[in-house]
Formats: sequence, C-alpha cells, structure tokens
Amino acid sequence: MKNSVGREIPEYIESYGQVKPFDGALANYGERTKTSVKLRSVKPGDNKLVETIDEVLDKVGIRDGMTVSFHHHLRNGDFVLNLVMEAIAKRGVKDITVAATGIFKIHEPLVDYIKSGIVTGISVNYIAPGPVATAISKGLLKKPAVLMSHGGRPRAIESGDLHIDVAFIAAPTADSYGNMNGVQGKAACGTLAYAVSDAQYADHVVAVTDNLVPYPACPIEISQDYVDYVVKVESIGDPNGIVSGTLTVTKDPVGLRIAKLAAQVIEATGYIKEGMSFQTGAGGTSLAVAAEVRRFMKEKNVVGSFAAGGITGYMVDMLNDGLFRSLFDVQCFDLKAIASMRDNPKHQKMSGSLYGNPHNRGAVVNNLDVMILGATEIDTDFNVNVVTGSDGIIIGASGGHNDTAAGSKLAIVVTNLTKGRLPVVKDQVTTVTTPGETIDVLVTERGIAVNPARQDLIDKLKDTDLPIVPIEELKNIAERLTGKPEPIEFSDQVVAVVQYRDGTVIDVVRKPL
Amino acid sequence: MKNSVGREIPEYIESYGQVKPFDGALANYGERTKTSVKLRSVKPGDNKLVETIDEVLDKVGIRDGMTVSFHHHLRNGDFVLNLVMEAIAKRGVKDITVAATGIFKIHEPLVDYIKSGIVTGISVNYIAPGPVATAISKGLLKKPAVLMSHGGRPRAIESGDLHIDVAFIAAPTADSYGNMNGVQGKAACGTLAYAVSDAQYADHVVAVTDNLVPYPACPIEISQDYVDYVVKVESIGDPNGIVSGTLTVTKDPVGLRIAKLAAQVIEATGYIKEGMSFQTGAGGTSLAVAAEVRRFMKEKNVVGSFAAGGITGYMVDMLNDGLFRSLFDVQCFDLKAIASMRDNPKHQKMSGSLYGNPHNRGAVVNNLDVMILGATEIDTDFNVNVVTGSDGIIIGASGGHNDTAAGSKLAIVVTNLTKGRLPVVKDQVTTVTTPGETIDVLVTERGIAVNPARQDLIDKLKDTDLPIVPIEELKNIAERLTGKPEPIEFSDQVVAVVQYRDGTVIDVVRKPL
Repeated sequence: MKNSVGREIPEYIESYGQVKPFDGALANYGERTKTSVKLRSVKPGDNKLVETIDEVLDKVGIRDGMTVSFHHHLRNGDFVLNLVMEAIAKRGVKDITVAATGIFKIHEPLVDYIKSGIVTGISVNYIAPGPVATAISKGLLKKPAVLMSHGGRPRAIESGDLHIDVAFIAAPTADSYGNMNGVQGKAACGTLAYAVSDAQYADHVVAVTDNLVPYPACPIEISQDYVDYVVKVESIGDPNGIVSGTLTVTKDPVGLRIAKLAAQVIEATGYIKEGMSFQTGAGGTSLAVAAEVRRFMKEKNVVGSFAAGGITGYMVDMLNDGLFRSLFDVQCFDLKAIASMRDNPKHQKMSGSLYGNPHNRGAVVNNLDVMILGATEIDTDFNVNVVTGSDGIIIGASGGHNDTAAGSKLAIVVTNLTKGRLPVVKDQVTTVTTPGETIDVLVTERGIAVNPARQDLIDKLKDTDLPIVPIEELKNIAERLTGKPEPIEFSDQVVAVVQYRDGTVIDVVRKPL
Repeated sequence: MKNSVGREIPEYIESYGQVKPFDGALANYGERTKTSVKLRSVKPGDNKLVETIDEVLDKVGIRDGMTVSFHHHLRNGDFVLNLVMEAIAKRGVKDITVAATGIFKIHEPLVDYIKSGIVTGISVNYIAPGPVATAISKGLLKKPAVLMSHGGRPRAIESGDLHIDVAFIAAPTADSYGNMNGVQGKAACGTLAYAVSDAQYADHVVAVTDNLVPYPACPIEISQDYVDYVVKVESIGDPNGIVSGTLTVTKDPVGLRIAKLAAQVIEATGYIKEGMSFQTGAGGTSLAVAAEVRRFMKEKNVVGSFAAGGITGYMVDMLNDGLFRSLFDVQCFDLKAIASMRDNPKHQKMSGSLYGNPHNRGAVVNNLDVMILGATEIDTDFNVNVVTGSDGIIIGASGGHNDTAAGSKLAIVVTNLTKGRLPVVKDQVTTVTTPGETIDVLVTERGIAVNPARQDLIDKLKDTDLPIVPIEELKNIAERLTGKPEPIEFSDQVVAVVQYRDGTVIDVVRKPL
C-alpha cells in the first residue's frame, strides 16, 4: 500500500506486525491511553545495591526474548550498553531486543551479537553512521530495526507499543537507593532526559553508576521510587567520548552564506520578535544560523522565551546574554552545557516525552517558533531524508527531526545543494523521515525554496531581495552540477521500519542490492 | 470481622464496598500495578487557556457522580476548592466526591454542599478540626468519608483505587501551557508535591492560577505534558492562611521535659550518628525535640543525611548549619521554607508518592532513621489515634503519621500523659490510625515506654537513668490523675473509613450517639 507521502510500504511486515501507514502529521491526535505498569514494591529495609551486572541479571530474571533499554547521553563514550550486553551474551541468552535511544560506533560489539542471534531486534531514535547501522542495512538483524524519533520513543513506551523488560540507566551519579543525576561524577553528561520514560514504564529499572554517593544524591533527576536496583561498575564511560570538544560556528564560506540566508528568512517572516523560541542542532552551519539570529536579536533588542533541544555552549551563552529567558534541555552536548544545567535554574531539563511526544498533553516542540534542521536529501515535496545515505545504507534516525518539524511554526532546512558530488534536492528521497507538510523553507547556497503550502511566508518574502526560487529549480541546478545519480537498487527485504513520531510507518528501509 | 489490630470492622460497607482488613504493616508488598491513564493529546496550536472556571467545567464535561481533586499546600488560605465547588454547585451537579489532600476551616462551604447532596463523598489525608470534620462525624455525608495517609493517597491514585475525573491544581505560578510552580507569586506556598499524582493520573488536569507568567514558567514543578487547561482567577489564596507565622520551639516546661527525654532516647539508642536522618512535625514539642537533637548533633560533630516531611524554617536552619546534607520537602510550612526551596538546590521537593507510597519502588520514609510523632491517644499495644477526639468526633487524619511510623527505624511518640483532663494512654484508643507494631517508643513527662517488640532498644536503654516504665504503668498513672473516662457510645453508622497506607482498613469511625 501507499501511505500519504506516497511511499510503497507492506501492510504486514514479518517480525514487526501489522503496519499503520502514515496518514498526515496531524492525523493521529485525540483520546490516548498511557499503559499500566507492573512493578515490585520495595519494603523498608530492602537493599537495592547489587554487586555485579551479572547478579542484576539474576534478579531481573533475564531470559530469551526480553527487551532491554539504554539511553545515549554518554554518546560515543558509553560503556554501559556494552557491559550489560556482554554479561547477557555470556549467559547464552538469545533473541534480545535492544531498545536504545542512541547507538554509536562504540557499540560495535552489537554486530557480533546480531550475527550470533543474541540480539535479534533493535529500536533506536538516533544512530551514528558506523558498524551497527551498516549491519542493519546488510540485513544481518533477524527482525527489522525500528527507527523512531526522540518524541516517538516515549510515545511508544507510554502507550505500551514498546514494552521494556529491563531498563539499564547509565547514571553518572547515584545513591544506593537509586536516586540519580547526570551532572556530577567523572562521567557527567548533563541531563538523563531520554531515560525518564524507561524509568517510568519498564518492568525492572537498574541504575548503573561509577559514582556511588551517600544517600540522598542531590540533585535528583530520576528518583528512587522508579528504581529497583543499583549496581556500581568501574567506569560507565569515557569522558572524551561523552562530551564533544567546543562546538563552533562553521568557517566554511558556503555554510556561512546558507546561515546568513536562513537568518534573513527568519527576520523577514517576522520571527525575530519578543518572546520568540528557537532550536537548532549542534552542527557548524546550524550554529552559524544561531550566530546570525543572535545578531538580529541584539539589533532588535529582543528577548526570546526559550531555546530547546540538545543544548550547546553556544545556547548557554545566549541564555547568559539575556537573549532567552530559559533553556529546555534534553541532552547536553558539551561541558559548558553540563555546567550550566547543573548551576543555572533557568537551564531546565525536559524528558523526552515533554520534548516531543505527540500523544501527551502538549510537548515543548508545540511551542517552538523556529527550528533549524539538516537534511541528507530533500525532495520536491519537501519530504526530508536523514536516515539513509546515497548508497541506501542507514546513517541515522530521526532524532528530534520530525518532532520539531511538526511542532515548530517555521521549520527551515539548511543544507548545501550538493554533497559529495551528489544532489541533495531530488525528485524522490531515498527514505522519508520527515513529511514535507511539516517543512516550511529550504535554504541552500544557491537559493531558497518555500513550501507552496505556506502562502503566508511566500507573501512575506516576495518583496525582499532574498533569492526565492521554486524547489524544482534547486533540484535542476543540483542535477546540472552533479548529474542525475543512478537510482540505488534494493532487494525486497525490509531491514528497518521508519516510524513517524505518532507510531505510523512513514517509510521502510530495504536492503540495498 | 476483626482486623489484625483487633478492631471490629464490617466486611462490607455501603457506598464503600468490600473491606480489605488491615493485616500487618508489612503484609501487603510484592507485585503491584500502576493503572493506565486516559488523556486527550494536545496538538501544536491548541490553546489551553480558559477564561473562567465555569468554562473549564464545560470543557471537562462535569457531571453527577464525578470525583474532583484538590491539594492543600495553600492550607487555611486556599480559595481554589471553594471557587471550584461553588461553580459546580451553581450548575446543579450532584453526587460529587471531593478528593482533597487536606481540608481546613476555610472549606466550611462544603458543609452546605454535603447537606444538599452536591457533595456525597470525601477522601482526605489531612483534615483540621472544624466544620467539615464535624459534619462527617454527624453522619451528614451520604457515603462514608475515606481517611487516608499522605503516602496512601498516591498509592490509591496510582493503583486505580481512587480514580480522579478532574484534578484542580492551585498554582501560585503557571504559564498558559500549564507549567507550574509554587515558589513564585503572591500565593507562593513552596512545593506542590501532593498534587503530583493527581496530575499524572486524573482524566483531566486543570491549573488554577492568579499569577500567569510568560511561557515557560521557571522553575517548573508540574509540567505542561500533564495539564489540559489553565484558568486565571483573581486570587487563589490568602497568604496569611497559607503560611504559618514563625513556628517556634515550645516554652511549656512539660513539653520541654518531654523533648529532652525524647532526644536522650535517640542519643542513647545510637541514632545520633553520621548520616542520620530525621523527621518531626511542626508542633512546639516536636520542634523542641529537633532543638535537642541539634544540640547532640553539634556536640558529636555529626552530619546527617537528610531531614524530611513538611519543612519548617527550623529544619532549614539545620540544613544551612550543615547538620543535614539535604532536605526532602513535601510541604513548606513557613516563608523561610518556601524561600529555601526556591533558592537552595539541597532543599529538594518530593512528590507524595516519593514521600510515603508503600507500593512504589521505595519511598523516602523507608530511609528514615528517627521519626517524632504526636498522638491524641495511644493504647497499651502502642496503637495510635490521631483521627478522633475524646468525644468521638473527627479531628484529623493520618497525614504522614502511619507512613513515617512504618518506614522509620525509631518511631517515637511524644505527648503529654494527659490532655484536657483526659488520659492519653488507654487500654484501647477510640480509633486506630497507626498500628502499634510500627511505634517503638512513647515519651511522656512521667516516663518512657518502649514497645516490647523492640528488645534491642530495651537493652540499649536499660543502663541509662532514663525513666523507662511499662506502658501499662503510664496508663495507670494517667488514669489515677484523670480518672477513667466513660466510654463514648457510638451508633452503628460508619461515617468514615480509616485506610492504612496500603489501602486496607485499619479502623472505621462510627457516629457518636
């Protein structure tokens, strides 16, 4: 069948089940249910501290077919997923589904577990290009991977679509009764926001820490009433892999030109205004947009309401400069962000659900004015791909892409028109991650295209000297520069299901031939 | 039938249902279920701000038989319960159950609603002596009132035993999307901790505020993802009724003697030690115990882990003096506590569930070393009554009494041996609120009784010069002083059901003749 972005998807996918096709970004609201939770109540005098991960696996009764979960705030420095999976693998347990909020190169050991059938399922909302993503693309995983968004995952957990048997929460600081935070300890990573739904809904919740502090931990982000066991390990992560170095504005002249154009679009459409809200990623071009927006805000003497998302030192500087009244932080990208979250009450954490879940009573993305997004490919219907590369291999998942696009009033994709001698604007993207109906403007170095559905924006931009062109023209320019690439050929095997944030299927990834 | 504290209770109570008899403080742990939650998801662009309470009642579809909930952090200054109930009453809606965490004298209008059948049910965990408590005692309420504890109420909500149709949350500060806090605004009350379960589990959640701030409120205690509607009213409360004046240590020599003895018991039994935790109420004698404990802690150069409960300025001073590393606050009693919670990260808030719910994965009371409790009556089995007065009329509910008694390692009741020419120690208390198995020591001005079940404490105290006596002797002394009072006579009508924190029935209150 075809879904509403025109993608051909199966009605039923083996090991996934019946497919609910994507039917529009706003099609799936209304009455919702948060599922019930099973737990074992803890008596006065009970001890939660367990000596080893192996002993935890006994306590939770690990067995074939279970789903175990992890969060990715330790990013490419995370040791916890590997430590737990190694202990599981040693027991000969099989058919495990890994529900990780993010997977990085450091998680390469998963590839062997996939090959040996220890891991047969993966659900993930951020995945870095690398060995695990490639193994999935090659069809090594028994069940199709499920690619979600940062808001879609807590939606899935809260609704019961994604049931977690055991949540393992990497805790830079914990006490022996399970109170945790991420702002203290040698593996400090800032907020633990993506793990909040796991703690609330998993059958068993385990804090894994290398910094066991006297009771009570202070501050507390995830509290003891959600935690069954605490286990101390030598190290939960490598600080060098956890935080990025200083993230800086791009120096590339093309990136700077794109950023300048994007900021001019924001200004010309009236979004540089008192109380404005803003989100951007951590890439060099995105930060360059932030730098331009900052300049406009200072010129106009404007104070914004909030900046949100994964937070960098750049956003912290804007907060401290008084350009925003508050930050909503779901993930700290650098040391400055971690310190700010620890010390500044205006730097507020938000759970993944509060950030982007479409089925709660209103996520933060709903209040975003301006969102700056990247793209691997974008088609002439403004559908965006951030999941697959030009060779059809998986290089990412939505992260907050389709959440913020859906929520924000002005969703701008900034990208070079061509990358690696391939066009970014195409007739059809390889994989749809984010529906075009939620993308408002595309900014490239060769011109700006506005979604025809946004006549209000077109009207506001038509008298400016900004290079507004139809998106088809950008496609043509790109193809003239690079030639039209040969289409990638795929087998019928579905290796990954791309869920939209509401749990419908917006696309599938098939195995490249 | 008789429950395990020997109280004769019906097997079935009309308008309450089948009775689960109390069967021991630790009888009811193990596998538990948190119930599912119905909600209406909120789309980008939806507006939550509603003009009037009346309009909110339309939106939530108020109708006969519904349960509406309130929290009591505004105490005797609360306007919200009355405002909402007045609007409900005007519509001719009937058969409403009021699930309030606390009821005060200011809520006297409830009496008329009870008489007219607008309100037919009440559940409450704190109730001040006064018109509503008296109306319940007189049997005016159609259904028996359900008296819970501060931990039992979130247990009831989370398990589904207490289903709330509409939660009205008095919010000293809120933004138009429902983010709230209690530390800012003219009706600042500190934490909103008792309302957290209501926000998480009610079908509809309404923030009622008189201080609507630009989005986002900061800090946020209850967040937008739990809130359907926000309504602004002229005033949510009277600051003079919200916070007490400065709460001070008693000057009464009897109270001071009791406090000194209690502190000596704590010291002699080894609980003045590094990492100790401590809770006491806000009464003059309780604060006097705190003053004595403080002196011992300073003498021994001891730093405690935490103090918990409803927090007074006295506890804030102990935190600031470095005598505790942290506070766990479920309710701020005075301006100093509110300011401290707002400004000091070591002053942590805790939800009612985190405080005392026996059926989560471990409440804070589980980690309490020493708890100082009051009593209206105590019997020779150490069962305590804080629910009914000597005339059988309701004057209170458990609050945190039976939660902290169950969790703490050393639960000490401090009380004058006689009150108002009546003995406090009796063969049988009028109503059991807290089972004797969870009370360790009774301290009076005429002697100290240790629960025989605590041989360890008896051993530690036997070589001190503290006046340790059997509890029966205290009873005899009291009766010699006051005479043995005539037993109160009751009709068969059950006017209130006293639930233990685990939802079993520890006693019932019958209508006095």
